[in-house]
Amino acid sequence: MANPQFLSYVDEHQQQFIDKLAEVVAIPSVSGDPAYRQHVHDMGAWMAKHLKELGAEVELRPLGKQVLDGQEIDLPPAVLGSLGNDPKKKTLLLYGHYDVQPALKEDGWRFDPWVLTPDPDNSGKLYGRGSSDDKGPILGWLNVIQAHKELGLDMPVNLKMCFEGMEESGSEGLDELIEKEKDGFFKGVDCVCISDNYWLNTTTPCLTYGLRGIAYFKISVSGPKRDLHSGVFGATVHEPMTDLIQLMSKLVTSEGEILVPGIKELVAPLTDEERKRYDVINFSVKDIDDAVGASVALSDDKATTLMGRMRYPSLSLHGIEGAFSAPGCKTVIPAAVHGKFSIRLVPDIGLEEVTKLVTDYVNAEFAKIKTKSSMSVEMLHGGEPWVADPNHYSYRAAHKATEAVYGVAPDYTREGGSIPVTLTFANILKSNVLLLPMGRGDDGAHSINEKLDTSNYIKGTKLLGTYLYELAKAE
Amino acid sequence: MANPQFLSYVDEHQQQFIDKLAEVVAIPSVSGDPAYRQHVHDMGAWMAKHLKELGAEVELRPLGKQVLDGQEIDLPPAVLGSLGNDPKKKTLLLYGHYDVQPALKEDGWRFDPWVLTPDPDNSGKLYGRGSSDDKGPILGWLNVIQAHKELGLDMPVNLKMCFEGMEESGSEGLDELIEKEKDGFFKGVDCVCISDNYWLNTTTPCLTYGLRGIAYFKISVSGPKRDLHSGVFGATVHEPMTDLIQLMSKLVTSEGEILVPGIKELVAPLTDEERKRYDVINFSVKDIDDAVGASVALSDDKATTLMGRMRYPSLSLHGIEGAFSAPGCKTVIPAAVHGKFSIRLVPDIGLEEVTKLVTDYVNAEFAKIKTKSSMSVEMLHGGEPWVADPNHYSYRAAHKATEAVYGVAPDYTREGGSIPVTLTFANILKSNVLLLPMGRGDDGAHSINEKLDTSNYIKGTKLLGTYLYELAKAE
Repeated sequence: MANPQFLSYVDEHQQQFIDKLAEVVAIPSVSGDPAYRQHVHDMGAWMAKHLKELGAEVELRPLGKQVLDGQEIDLPPAVLGSLGNDPKKKTLLLYGHYDVQPALKEDGWRFDPWVLTPDPDNSGKLYGRGSSDDKGPILGWLNVIQAHKELGLDMPVNLKMCFEGMEESGSEGLDELIEKEKDGFFKGVDCVCISDNYWLNTTTPCLTYGLRGIAYFKISVSGPKRDLHSGVFGATVHEPMTDLIQLMSKLVTSEGEILVPGIKELVAPLTDEERKRYDVINFSVKDIDDAVGASVALSDDKATTLMGRMRYPSLSLHGIEGAFSAPGCKTVIPAAVHGKFSIRLVPDIGLEEVTKLVTDYVNAEFAKIKTKSSMSVEMLHGGEPWVADPNHYSYRAAHKATEAVYGVAPDYTREGGSIPVTLTFANILKSNVLLLPMGRGDDGAHSINEKLDTSNYIKGTKLLGTYLYELAKAE
Repeated sequence: MANPQFLSYVDEHQQQFIDKLAEVVAIPSVSGDPAYRQHVHDMGAWMAKHLKELGAEVELRPLGKQVLDGQEIDLPPAVLGSLGNDPKKKTLLLYGHYDVQPALKEDGWRFDPWVLTPDPDNSGKLYGRGSSDDKGPILGWLNVIQAHKELGLDMPVNLKMCFEGMEESGSEGLDELIEKEKDGFFKGVDCVCISDNYWLNTTTPCLTYGLRGIAYFKISVSGPKRDLHSGVFGATVHEPMTDLIQLMSKLVTSEGEILVPGIKELVAPLTDEERKRYDVINFSVKDIDDAVGASVALSDDKATTLMGRMRYPSLSLHGIEGAFSAPGCKTVIPAAVHGKFSIRLVPDIGLEEVTKLVTDYVNAEFAKIKTKSSMSVEMLHGGEPWVADPNHYSYRAAHKATEAVYGVAPDYTREGGSIPVTLTFANILKSNVLLLPMGRGDDGAHSINEKLDTSNYIKGTKLLGTYLYELAKAE
C-alpha cells in the first residue's frame, strides 16, 4: 500500500495536475517536422526545469545532429534525471518521451489539438495531442514526485529517469546513449518501468510483458530496362509484375497461415500457465470488430484471437513499389517492381533465422517460375521480439498496485507491435522491463482526437506512486 | 505509278518541306495542358489557312468545351477539308492530328523540343516534338497537294480531310462529330487512310491492318473500415491485400498464358494466308530485346513473338491502388485495395464476352478463398479490336505505292495497342481503313528526343502521293 497522505494529495490536486498537463500539451513538440523542432527543445527544457524544482539532479544530454528535409538540425536532448541515491533502496529507471505525433485541426480534430480540452459532455475525456502519448504518463511520474516533496515524504525507491524527444521519429541517438552510459548514468539500475502503451480495452488495467519483433522484406523483380506499353509488349515479354504476384501469393493464406516453411515450427511452445493468461483477459472478439469497424476477425475464439496478436507470428503484404498505384487506368508493364511484406516475430523466431528461411524459400519459389526476369529478396529492417518474465518482482509489485488502486487484478498482455527501446534496455542493462500503461485502448495515440480519461490520469498517478511502494517492499 | 513531275517536285522541294515542318513543330500544340491550349488553336488555324491556300474548302468545326484542371475551356476544333468533288473519282478520307504530347527540355531532350533540329552527325534525323507524331505525316499530305497545285496537275482522287487537335487527350468530341456527319461531311467516302503509326522496325515500310482492343479491369477487395497497423492486427483479421494477391495470381502465368477460362478458345483461327504474313515480316526476336533493353522475350521464335503482339490476347497486371507504394517501409494493413489489369482483345474476343468471362472467373475464384473480405470486379474501360481486309483495293494500292517508292514489298502488320478513331471510322462509315505509317519504329513518339528521319519524310510524301494514283486505278 502507498502512503495514504500521497493518495489524498493526488485527489486534492486533480485540477492542478490537469492544468499542468494542459501546459505541456500547449507545447507542440512534434519531432517529425523540422518546423516544430524548437518546440521539442522547449519541451525538453520544461522537463529539466520542473524536475530540478522537484529536487532531481538533471542533465540535458545532447544527442548530436540529424538531417531532416535537407537541413542539418540538432537532435532534441535526452533529459537524464536522478532522485535519491540511497544504497539501501532499489533503483528504478523510468523511461518516457516528451515529443509527440503531428496534429492539425483540419485533419478532423474536434478541438484545437494543442489546447487540452475536457469533453463538453462531461465524459471526463481530456482531448489533446500528447495527452496520452506520452505527456500524461510522464507527468504522472512528476505528480508522484511533487506529492512526496510537498508532503515531506521519503521516496520509497531511488529514481533514475530517461526522457527522450525523438521517440516518434525513430529514437535517433538513444541506443548509442544507453550503450555508452550502461556503466555510467544507468549503473545500478535494478529494473525499468515504461509507461508508454495502452490497456487492451477501455475497462481493464494491464501489465504488458511482451512485444513482437519485425522483419520487413522487399522482393525486387526486374526485366525490361524501362516501363513498357502493354499494347505493344503484352504477350511478347516476361512481365516482372506477373512474377512478383506469383511470389507474393506464396507467402501467406487468406486465413493468415504463413507459408514460409520452418517459421511456425520455431514458435515457443504454449505452456499451460501462459495459456491461462489469455483465457482470463477481459476481451472479446467483438472488441476487434469494433476497433476495425467490420466483422473480419480470423477466429471466433477469444484466446485464439489474442494469441494471434500477442504470441504468434503474422505475415502482412503491405504493397508494391514501382507498379501503377494511382486511381484510373494506365496500361503500363512496369520494368521493375518491389513487393513489400513483413513478418511479426515472437519467441523463438530470431531475426537472423527468419531472414534465412524467407530468403531460401523465395529463391526456391522463384526457381520454379518459368521467367527471364531477375529477382532478389532483401530484409530492409528488423527488430527482435521481446518477452519479460511476468513473475519478476517488478511485475508482482505492479500487480499489487493495480489491485490496490483499481480493485481488480490486471490483465497480462503482450503487444503485437514494437517499442524498440524496450529491447535496448532489456539487452544492454540486462534488466527486467515492465510496461505499465496509463491510458485506454481507445486513446487514439497516433490518430485525430487523441485523449486521456481524467480517471486514467488521476488513478494512473496513484498507480505509479503505489507501484513504487510495492516495488520497495518486493523481494 | 505517280506522275513523274510530282516525284521530281518532292525531291526539288525537300528543304522547303523541312522548313515547313520546322514552322509547325515550333507551335507547341500540347492538348493535355490547359496552359498550352491557345497553341493548339493556333495550330488548327495554321492548318486551315494553309489548306485554303492550297485550294481546299475548309471549316474549323467547334467541338464544344471540356473541363481541364478545374477550368472550362474550348476544345480545339476539327479541321474539316474537301478538295475535289468529281463523281468519276474515288473519294478518300484522310485523318491526322495536329496536337502533340507534352515535352520539356529538362526531361532529357538533346535539343529544344520545339525547334526542329537536324542531327549534327548528319544521320538525317530531324528531332522535335510532333515531327513524327503526327505533324510530319499531315504535312506529307499538304506537300502532295502543294505539288499538284503548283505543277497544275489534276488530283487523282477526291480528298476529304479530318484533322483533330485532341488525339493525345482522348479525342474528345470526335466520335460525336463522325456520327453526326456520317451522312453529311463524310457522305460518299470510299475508304479511309490514316498515317499515325510506325514501321515495326527501322528499315521496312509496312501497312497496318489490325489493332488489338482492350478491356481494363479493377478488382476491389475491402475489409476493415480503416487502414490498420500490422503489429496490432496482424494474425487477427483477414487482410484484403492477401486476398487480392491470391486473385491476381490466378489471372496469368509468368509465361503469359491467360488463366481465365474460355478466352483463348475465342481467338479467331489462324489461316495459312495470315500465318504467311508473319513469316515474311522483316523482324527478329532481337528487335524485341533491343527495344526493351533486356533479353526477356517470351519466345525465341519470330512468328510466335509477332503473333503474341499482333493476333493473340495478352493479360498484364498493372498495379494496385490503395496499398503502400512508396519507397521505404510502412507496416500498414491497407483497408481496401484495387488491383488493376487489362486484357488486349483480338478477333473474335468481344468486349462483352471477355467482361463476362473475367467477372465470372474472378467471382468463382474468390468464392474458393476463405475470407471475410468483400470483393467486386469491374470493367473500367474498353475498346473492341479492329482488323481490316488487307486484300481490299486500298491496301493493294498502298502495296504498289510502297514497292514503287521503296523498292520493297511492305510488311503487313497488326499493332498491339489501340487507335480508337480507326474503329470509329470503320464502324460508323462502314469503310475500309488503311493505316499507312510514315515514321520508323524507333521514332520515340511519346518519349524524349522524338524524331523523323528526313528520308521517311521525303519518301513518305512520295508514298502518300503515289498511293493516290494507285488508289485511283485500283478496282
